[in-house]
Amino acid sequence: MSGVPRAFGVRVLEGIGEIRPGDDLVDVIATAARGSLAEGDILVVTSKVVSKAEGRIVHASDRERAITEETVRVVATRSHPDGVTRIVENRLGMVAAAAGVDASNTDEGTVLLLPVDPDASARALAAGLRARTGRALGVIISDTLGRPWREGQTDVAIGAAGVHVFDDLRGTVDAAGKPLAVTMPCLADELAAAGDLVKGKATGCPVAVVSGLPHLVGGLDLPGARSIVRPRDRDLFRMGTDEAIALGTAAGRSAGYSAGRAAGFTEGFTAGIGAAEHERVRS
Amino acid sequence: MSGVPRAFGVRVLEGIGEIRPGDDLVDVIATAARGSLAEGDILVVTSKVVSKAEGRIVHASDRERAITEETVRVVATRSHPDGVTRIVENRLGMVAAAAGVDASNTDEGTVLLLPVDPDASARALAAGLRARTGRALGVIISDTLGRPWREGQTDVAIGAAGVHVFDDLRGTVDAAGKPLAVTMPCLADELAAAGDLVKGKATGCPVAVVSGLPHLVGGLDLPGARSIVRPRDRDLFRMGTDEAIALGTAAGRSAGYSAGRAAGFTEGFTAGIGAAEHERVRS
Repeated sequence: MSGVPRAFGVRVLEGIGEIRPGDDLVDVIATAARGSLAEGDILVVTSKVVSKAEGRIVHASDRERAITEETVRVVATRSHPDGVTRIVENRLGMVAAAAGVDASNTDEGTVLLLPVDPDASARALAAGLRARTGRALGVIISDTLGRPWREGQTDVAIGAAGVHVFDDLRGTVDAAGKPLAVTMPCLADELAAAGDLVKGKATGCPVAVVSGLPHLVGGLDLPGARSIVRPRDRDLFRMGTDEAIALGTAAGRSAGYSAGRAAGFTEGFTAGIGAAEHERVRS
Repeated sequence: MSGVPRAFGVRVLEGIGEIRPGDDLVDVIATAARGSLAEGDILVVTSKVVSKAEGRIVHASDRERAITEETVRVVATRSHPDGVTRIVENRLGMVAAAAGVDASNTDEGTVLLLPVDPDASARALAAGLRARTGRALGVIISDTLGRPWREGQTDVAIGAAGVHVFDDLRGTVDAAGKPLAVTMPCLADELAAAGDLVKGKATGCPVAVVSGLPHLVGGLDLPGARSIVRPRDRDLFRMGTDEAIALGTAAGRSAGYSAGRAAGFTEGFTAGIGAAEHERVRS
């Protein structure tokens, strides 16, 4: 990926209306684009419209159950005046508040689940749009996530197809000739973030087009966004701090109790013999 | 911040050479821009060149000491074949590997510290460039950070001036009229991410210009990037999981030992009296 372009543009695709279950997103996007998609363009598509097209809608009354069903494990919980936020690892490996179950920009009384397989959704979209336009296009499916240590949220890639999700610089050198040992910028997340700057949250513009970065576009067999998810056992922050302290405390208390009881028994036994002896001498 | 534009552009500023301690970045950037900066443009400046201009350079042999000096507390450590990575909270409140001390794109035998006060550096740059160009410009100072749960790195804002760092949607409604209760996109981080897509790591292009988002530009008294840092006591992931488990284990063991020792003493005392009694009867 040498020869990085010096500029790129990001625009929203106008004229995409409300998406309903069963809608053909390839057709919706191609129609809205009206022939404007160029070779190497990357579409950043809000996951919400993919979920809607795929019918991933449940009644709001089923929200808690939906979150539980999407959850592989609870990472951390936080109590607040309105209830408890569960930060969980979901079935996609993503760590997200409420497992990614979304109640904004949905019909009254409904919530949205994430697409079943966002990488597969991205591949289907990219394949369909490539066939329709005859152009090599990339697709990112984006979602809005909070993060540790920093306030607010950024859009990240939860699905990707036909796009290099990482710029793998490991093994290359910097401008001064030194190895860039661990540097692996997550292009897919940066593309999702760039798209959010025009898509916004309340504007009803769920698709952005990034033009001018064709070097980031490749085959549909490139690794998807699933490859961004760090395996749990490699993650230094795989549990919330309070949860990890509680886990350690329980284990430590149990081990400490056993050790303390053994030591106390020995001390008590000696003291008991001494006391009995003392009693006997006195009496 | 209504009336969000439908498109924006990002380009690198060509012709910025190697930056040396004492260089005037306002002059360097204004000269490279050659009159091309427009009202409402946002400059994304790699922190590395700010550090260099500010002379924040130390000998590589002092790297470990520099990391220690920049560290407020260790958040997590990871051992690997090349040594130990310290993920720490630095004096800016940022959680970063090696406290943000940087050995890439620096002269042989040197490492770079982060700017002393990146928000102040951003304000000085923005004020200088506004005076020089007569245009309302914003400045983001970016750095490359890893993150929990997701592989790779993204560029984020560690300094900001004249830019709305958040799009505070809390209290507003979505397209369906529902409240966007907790939504607060971190625009500054998304701008930094967008800039990285053209700046790259090895290209010697430390400044990107984002054009077309003038609604994100405001007064120089807007909150800086320091406001992005979540206070430690509000963070669910303020410690590494292993470190938190170890902390809990030590506390639990101590408490458990005391409780176990007391229980064991009672048991032992009773048993000791019993044994002494038994011995007396036998003898």
